[in-house]
Amino acid sequence: MARVVVDVMLKPEILDPQGQAVQRALPRLGFAGISDVRQGKRFELELDGPADDAALARVREMAETFLANTVIEDFTVRVEETVKAES
Amino acid sequence: MARVVVDVMLKPEILDPQGQAVQRALPRLGFAGISDVRQGKRFELELDGPADDAALARVREMAETFLANTVIEDFTVRVEETVKAES
Repeated sequence: MARVVVDVMLKPEILDPQGQAVQRALPRLGFAGISDVRQGKRFELELDGPADDAALARVREMAETFLANTVIEDFTVRVEETVKAES
Repeated sequence: MARVVVDVMLKPEILDPQGQAVQRALPRLGFAGISDVRQGKRFELELDGPADDAALARVREMAETFLANTVIEDFTVRVEETVKAES
């Protein structure tokens, strides 16, 4: 069992209305000093087997074909080594 | 300028219909070996100043009060050190 994380974000040149809405709300809520906010998606995939090169290549193909819309979105695939610490 | 990433995921005990839909679609699309998928949100915040302890505490407060719904969601705050590599 391994956990692989796929992060999908809008490409930098694509307008992000969700992120802009968050950014514009921040000063009203008392949070200053944030110059930009982008909002994207995070997928956590639990693999049955180990996260070897073959598995990662498959996840990358999966992300490209249907987790992300590569016309407007970039994605990154990485293996999550550490147990997620709650903040 | 520093980039801080806030990941917001549904708590493990909360049903995730989006993630389940993705998981159920995978075998049909030819991807086997994924036992679970969870979908969440990723926020990338660009800070005006450095990502010191005070700034991170502020971001954490922001995440808790309005980026995440802490009744059903967990969040993590981390500083993004590396430049995002496109896959």
